[in-house]
Amino acid sequence: MREILTLAFARAVSVEFIGTLIFVFIGLGSALKWPSALPSILQISLAFGLAIGTMVQAFGHISGAHINPAVSIAFFVGNQISFLRTLFYVVAQLVGAIAGAGILYGVTPANTRGNLAINALNNNTTPGQALVVEILLTFQLAICIFASTDNRRSGGVGSPALSIGLSVALGHLVGIYFTGCSMNPARSFGPAVVMRRFSPAHWVFWVGPILGACLAALLYFYVLVPYCMSIARIANVERAETLPEPPARPKRGENPSSS
Amino acid sequence: MREILTLAFARAVSVEFIGTLIFVFIGLGSALKWPSALPSILQISLAFGLAIGTMVQAFGHISGAHINPAVSIAFFVGNQISFLRTLFYVVAQLVGAIAGAGILYGVTPANTRGNLAINALNNNTTPGQALVVEILLTFQLAICIFASTDNRRSGGVGSPALSIGLSVALGHLVGIYFTGCSMNPARSFGPAVVMRRFSPAHWVFWVGPILGACLAALLYFYVLVPYCMSIARIANVERAETLPEPPARPKRGENPSSS
Amino acid sequence: MREILTLAFARAVSVEFIGTLIFVFIGLGSALKWPSALPSILQISLAFGLAIGTMVQAFGHISGAHINPAVSIAFFVGNQISFLRTLFYVVAQLVGAIAGAGILYGVTPANTRGNLAINALNNNTTPGQALVVEILLTFQLAICIFASTDNRRSGGVGSPALSIGLSVALGHLVGIYFTGCSMNPARSFGPAVVMRRFSPAHWVFWVGPILGACLAALLYFYVLVPYCMSIARIANVERAETLPEPPARPKRGENPSSS
Amino acid sequence: MREILTLAFARAVSVEFIGTLIFVFIGLGSALKWPSALPSILQISLAFGLAIGTMVQAFGHISGAHINPAVSIAFFVGNQISFLRTLFYVVAQLVGAIAGAGILYGVTPANTRGNLAINALNNNTTPGQALVVEILLTFQLAICIFASTDNRRSGGVGSPALSIGLSVALGHLVGIYFTGCSMNPARSFGPAVVMRRFSPAHWVFWVGPILGACLAALLYFYVLVPYCMSIARIANVERAETLPEPPARPKRGENPSSS
Repeated sequence: MREILTLAFARAVSVEFIGTLIFVFIGLGSALKWPSALPSILQISLAFGLAIGTMVQAFGHISGAHINPAVSIAFFVGNQISFLRTLFYVVAQLVGAIAGAGILYGVTPANTRGNLAINALNNNTTPGQALVVEILLTFQLAICIFASTDNRRSGGVGSPALSIGLSVALGHLVGIYFTGCSMNPARSFGPAVVMRRFSPAHWVFWVGPILGACLAALLYFYVLVPYCMSIARIANVERAETLPEPPARPKRGENPSSS
Repeated sequence: MREILTLAFARAVSVEFIGTLIFVFIGLGSALKWPSALPSILQISLAFGLAIGTMVQAFGHISGAHINPAVSIAFFVGNQISFLRTLFYVVAQLVGAIAGAGILYGVTPANTRGNLAINALNNNTTPGQALVVEILLTFQLAICIFASTDNRRSGGVGSPALSIGLSVALGHLVGIYFTGCSMNPARSFGPAVVMRRFSPAHWVFWVGPILGACLAALLYFYVLVPYCMSIARIANVERAETLPEPPARPKRGENPSSS
Repeated sequence: MREILTLAFARAVSVEFIGTLIFVFIGLGSALKWPSALPSILQISLAFGLAIGTMVQAFGHISGAHINPAVSIAFFVGNQISFLRTLFYVVAQLVGAIAGAGILYGVTPANTRGNLAINALNNNTTPGQALVVEILLTFQLAICIFASTDNRRSGGVGSPALSIGLSVALGHLVGIYFTGCSMNPARSFGPAVVMRRFSPAHWVFWVGPILGACLAALLYFYVLVPYCMSIARIANVERAETLPEPPARPKRGENPSSS
Repeated sequence: MREILTLAFARAVSVEFIGTLIFVFIGLGSALKWPSALPSILQISLAFGLAIGTMVQAFGHISGAHINPAVSIAFFVGNQISFLRTLFYVVAQLVGAIAGAGILYGVTPANTRGNLAINALNNNTTPGQALVVEILLTFQLAICIFASTDNRRSGGVGSPALSIGLSVALGHLVGIYFTGCSMNPARSFGPAVVMRRFSPAHWVFWVGPILGACLAALLYFYVLVPYCMSIARIANVERAETLPEPPARPKRGENPSSS
């Protein structure tokens, strides 16, 4: 419990809110139906991807920059963050997504809003097929996140922000055709709330991403790289990246295993 | 005062001039209306983004490579650079932008110049809506810059130049539709001077980016990562990146807090 | 022989299977013929490239992330991995490619499957011409892989995952026109098995990539950077990237020179 | 003189040949006029850029990966490499470009070759205008190369290969419209030789890039970062990146100041 009373925790939750707001604002904003020039699939994919990439670069050292309930839940399943942190992150992400979609609604000319890029199934796709696609696409994203932010690796990681962002773009290059591409329940939930339009298959955008990310967590943290010596070191990037000053505070309050 | 009499300061101001000249030349140049093949939104976005990315890679260790009055003012608000440095940078950037736009005007066939890609509001967008968009887009860029160049981080930053450049590209993927996308008063000012065409909403391209960047600075430097132990270490990248020779000069003259 | 009885070896073979499955699923998936919007060459190229880039980022520290029989065989020719490792990798990659193509077949609406993006020669291209193209394109990819993962380099490598992924994208920008672009026998084999359609020129997609990659291995490991002091250190990235715990096991069983 | 008798020198010259061959083959190859789908400007720009990026990643530690006579001459002007090294590099690059263009000619169906993407002025552009464009575009590329490979910098460089490659792509996004975009005399020379078609403005593609790159060298190595303490350390990346074994040979023969 002590963990959530720290300033660092409040900062982390805040940036999950801000990060998801910006991600949803820009992602959905790139997919509006401007009469002058309809955006291409590649353009929308890169917008979603670079938005995540930029948020990870900006906030990764403060909250881990999950920006995605499926990712937070998967980090919890992988025993990397505490239940309370997961809960606060997910709520902040969902509220942020609604805020981002709402601001976009407000600044967009009425004839351009369309359905605010809500996720929906392609006419020829069944919910089962969509579910498989969402599971696989989120699986590759989650594995990429776990490997990119694994601070037990000592080199060769390059730019975690770019790799994670491009993994999001990658998913969209295939997923947009099937489902509009969710991989992120918050991204699906925000515009659905603002437009008050929940399709019957809305559950796919919760179950698919969460299942895919959790499968990736089970594989990565229990099978592939299963040394559990340093719980909470990976996801809490803000401590992993050593900020030299000020001297490290006592770790107890922030260690999820004691919360 | 002593700071601005150093050779390093003169170099820094010079590369802000050169960097903004090249950025504006290439950015606007990518958006010309060539009859043979109109550039796509994605193409223009990547040109603006990669231009910033390349300038940051080339000049980041010399001046910090702000290339943007809003960014320089925000670094000042965040107490990272002195007032005089901010002033000289902004003037150099504005003059550089005019020079870049002017050279482009000179080398472009008359039938292709169009309005030289000046920023203007979409017909269906109000100045208030445009202002919100410019604030949000510049906010994400500025936060990305602060986090990417924060030398208190010890790892995981990857390539600051690419992350910053792609953050600029990201803003354009949404902003071009609303306002042509400024995020940078110099980029808006240069072609407006050369074409002698200041739209009534030109103020949006000053107020929006400066507000967005300063909000980001307040958040980053006072709330999120507020250790003020080493003023002037972050923005002045030329000293942060240790060039082994020659031996470090006395720091007093370059410390903004003493200027 | 002892090498293949370790847990690390089983993990490595598993992720070659998973990685190739995801690569083929996403790569082929990006090239489906959706009636709403046909994907562009650039879009398909980036999908194949980012898929490899993401898999290298995710699995590079576990198996080396070859994801490509031609690459595994070339590492063997370069005396970097053992024969048994090569054999297991190649089998895992081929089975993974069939699985990925099969899953894609299952989730795609029947009117969109087309030929599942199998490789085939352009009508105006002879097998000999296609062979030269595949050799050259795979050569540049393989050299890029060897240089990016050479742990004798001490800096300047940047992001191996992105460089390798973009090298794959690069090959597709040219190769798609000639052959659909293989550079990877598994990528060609998977959809051909699922669609039961082996063109007379299918051999090109085996001989070309394997020849190109092996030529690159001969050049890199015997001519350009021929210090053979540390066999097995380069390709087995899982040991090269020092995971600090647990203490290193005895190396004998994993040293190909003793297998 | 002793420098050119070393094995390292022969390797370096060889990879300049191979690198330019592959660069020209892929760059021109991406711009062929396939009837099925004409490549877009963005697609061609990324192909040229990623080709340079891949070659720098693959060969940067062996020869410095100039792949460009203008860059080699500029490194000589900046007092970074010897005259003989410059001469051998330039010859290798020109021969490599002819070979790359020739191979492409051989493998391409006759109806698709077009003019093999030779450089030529836009109909409405004067040679003077084209010259200014080539100078500016090569200037930004050369400055980016010098800064990315400056081994006196201790951090923040990210991925030199990607930054340099994207700088090439950036130039093409503007330059293709004006001149087809050279920035590299070898890239212009190769296809002109193979097609036996030298336009009256062919000199622009020699004078422009060489002038732009040399201006950048004068600025960078004499004004901006003028510590001349370690001539030959920057451009000769093969020594800068310390390959731990074998023990360093006597440096005299490779030091340009003694050649």
